[in-house]
Amino acid sequence: MITTRINEIFRLRHPIVQGGMIWVSGWRLAAAVSKAGALGLIGAGSMTPELLRAHIRKIKNEDAEGVWGVNLPIFFQYAEEMARIILEEKVRVVFTSGGSPRKYTSRFKDAGIKVAHVTATPELAVKCEEAGVDAVVMEGFEAGGHNGRDELTTMVLVPQTVDAVKIPVIAAGGIFDGRGMAAALAMGAAGVQIGTRFAATRESSAHDNFKGMILNARPTDTFLILRKLIPARVIKNPWYERVVEAEKRGASPEELLRIIGEKRTKIGMFEGDLREGELQIGQAAGAIGDLPAAGDVVDAIARDCERIMAEMPGQLLGNR
Amino acid sequence: MITTRINEIFRLRHPIVQGGMIWVSGWRLAAAVSKAGALGLIGAGSMTPELLRAHIRKIKNEDAEGVWGVNLPIFFQYAEEMARIILEEKVRVVFTSGGSPRKYTSRFKDAGIKVAHVTATPELAVKCEEAGVDAVVMEGFEAGGHNGRDELTTMVLVPQTVDAVKIPVIAAGGIFDGRGMAAALAMGAAGVQIGTRFAATRESSAHDNFKGMILNARPTDTFLILRKLIPARVIKNPWYERVVEAEKRGASPEELLRIIGEKRTKIGMFEGDLREGELQIGQAAGAIGDLPAAGDVVDAIARDCERIMAEMPGQLLGNR
Repeated sequence: MITTRINEIFRLRHPIVQGGMIWVSGWRLAAAVSKAGALGLIGAGSMTPELLRAHIRKIKNEDAEGVWGVNLPIFFQYAEEMARIILEEKVRVVFTSGGSPRKYTSRFKDAGIKVAHVTATPELAVKCEEAGVDAVVMEGFEAGGHNGRDELTTMVLVPQTVDAVKIPVIAAGGIFDGRGMAAALAMGAAGVQIGTRFAATRESSAHDNFKGMILNARPTDTFLILRKLIPARVIKNPWYERVVEAEKRGASPEELLRIIGEKRTKIGMFEGDLREGELQIGQAAGAIGDLPAAGDVVDAIARDCERIMAEMPGQLLGNR
Repeated sequence: MITTRINEIFRLRHPIVQGGMIWVSGWRLAAAVSKAGALGLIGAGSMTPELLRAHIRKIKNEDAEGVWGVNLPIFFQYAEEMARIILEEKVRVVFTSGGSPRKYTSRFKDAGIKVAHVTATPELAVKCEEAGVDAVVMEGFEAGGHNGRDELTTMVLVPQTVDAVKIPVIAAGGIFDGRGMAAALAMGAAGVQIGTRFAATRESSAHDNFKGMILNARPTDTFLILRKLIPARVIKNPWYERVVEAEKRGASPEELLRIIGEKRTKIGMFEGDLREGELQIGQAAGAIGDLPAAGDVVDAIARDCERIMAEMPGQLLGNR
C-alpha cells in the first residue's frame, strides 16, 4: 500500500483523487471511487445549488463511511450559495479551483473541512499554502477542461512545486495509469488527481456518445483552445474546428464568445451531440480504450503503481 | 548504476542523452557529457557543413574513447552535405529530427551507425520503428526550441509510445534532474534526453547573457510561439512580445516570417542580444539556478535518479 500525507489528511486507502469534472462526476462516480478507497469528488461546476445538495444527500445515503468531497469552481456564479450548502451539509472535503484560494479556505477550514486548491504554477502554489490549504493540486497543460494560462506541464510543475511549498503536492494532468502515478511519486508528489480516465467509466455521467468518442480518440485528438478567454482542452470535432478557424484569423474575445454561445458543454458532454458540443477532456483520452467500473480503475492504478515502485530498484540492475 | 537497452545500444555508463541544440551544443559540451559517461550530441542545426566537420574533428581529438554523436535536423538546408560528412568522418551515433526517419536511417545503419530519431507522437514513433531506428526520442510540449504540432506532453507521450513500439523509448521535454529521470523510467522509458539543463553549463556555447537569462527565468517565463510556421518554445523577451502581438491579431505566416527575419536565434542565443534575439529554451528553464560543469550535471542526475529508484519501495511504507 502506498501511504503518503495525502492518505493521512483525507483518510484514504490510496492517495488517488478522482478529479471533479463538469457533467461527468456526479454522486455515482464519486461514490464508486470512494468505495474503492480513493477520494471521489462531485463536480459542482455544472450543477445548480439545489442539484448539488441533492447529489450530496444521495452520496451520503449511498456511502456513509467512504471519503468523498466537492469540487467547487470559485469563479462559478453559484459559488457563494454552494459554499453555504457545503457547510450546511457538513461536507468533509472540498477542492476549490479557478480563483483565489483565499476566498473560501478559512471559512471551510474553520468548519473542520479538509481543503485542497487546484492551480497551475509554482508561484500560485505558494499563495495556496499561504491561504492555509491542506494540499495543492498542480494541474498540467495536458489536463482536460479549463487550463492554466502559462501552459506548464505536469513534468515541470510537480518537482518545482515540491521545492516551493511544504504542503503535499497532488499531481494532475496526463496521468491515466499506474505508470503515471509512479512517475508523479518519483517527482515528489504525494498523490495524483485523475480526471479523463474516470470520465470513461461506467459510473461517469458523461453521455454514452461522449464516452465512445473518448474510447476512440487517438493521442493527437485533443487540443487547447480559447486562449483569449479561459483556455480549455477539448476533443476535436466540428464545433472545435469553427473555434480554431476563428482563432487563426485573430477573432476577438467577443466573437469567440458568440461562437461558444450557451450550454455548449452540456450539449456535448451530457446530451451527446458530438458535432455541436464542447467536449472537454485531457490528452490522456488517446490512451483509453475501455469502459471499466470506476472502482476497478482505482484498484488497477494503485496495484500497478505499487508493483512499479517495488520493482524500481531492479531497474538499477538492468532488467529493462 | 541504471542499465537499460539505451546503455547497451550506445555503450553508455548512464542512459542520459544531452540533446543536440542549435548555438548551444558544440564539441565542448558534447565532449564534457561524453567524458561523464552519457551521450553528448553536437547540434548541427546552426552550423555550416565545414564547421560541423571541424567540431567532429575536435571532439575526436579531445575524446577518443567517449561516446558522442551528431544531431542532424533533416529539414535543414545542409542536411544532405552533413550526412555525407557524418559518413566520411565515421561518426558512430546520429540523432535525426525534424523530418522523415526514412530519409537517412538505412544509409546510416548500413555504415554501422547507431540511429535514433526525435519525434512527438506515438503514431510517428511507429514510423520510426518501421524505418529501422535503434531508439526513438519522444519530445514533449515542454521542450525548448522546435516542437511538435500536436502539443503532446512528455507525461502522455512516454507511456503511450512504450505501448506502441518495441524499440527503446528515450523521454525528452521537461526533464532537468534525477526526479524527472526516475519519473521517465517509471513510465517505461529506457533513457532520457535533456536539453535545457545542459544549455546552462560552463561548456555550453550559449552566450553568457543567454545563460544568465536562463538562470533568472521563472517557471512561467517560456511560451510556445509560431504555431502557424514551425512551433518553437522561447523565453519571453521584447521580440517574443512582437510575435505574440502579431499572432493574437491573426497575422499570416508571411507576416510572421517578416517579423522573424534572418539569424534571429544566432542574434539571441549566440551573440547575446536578449531584446532582439529568439531565445529557444524549454520550460525547465524555470527550475535552473546555477551554472555547473556539464559532467557534474550528468553525475548529479544519475546519482539522484539511482537514489530515488532505490528508495521507491520505501514509499510504499509511508515515509513521504
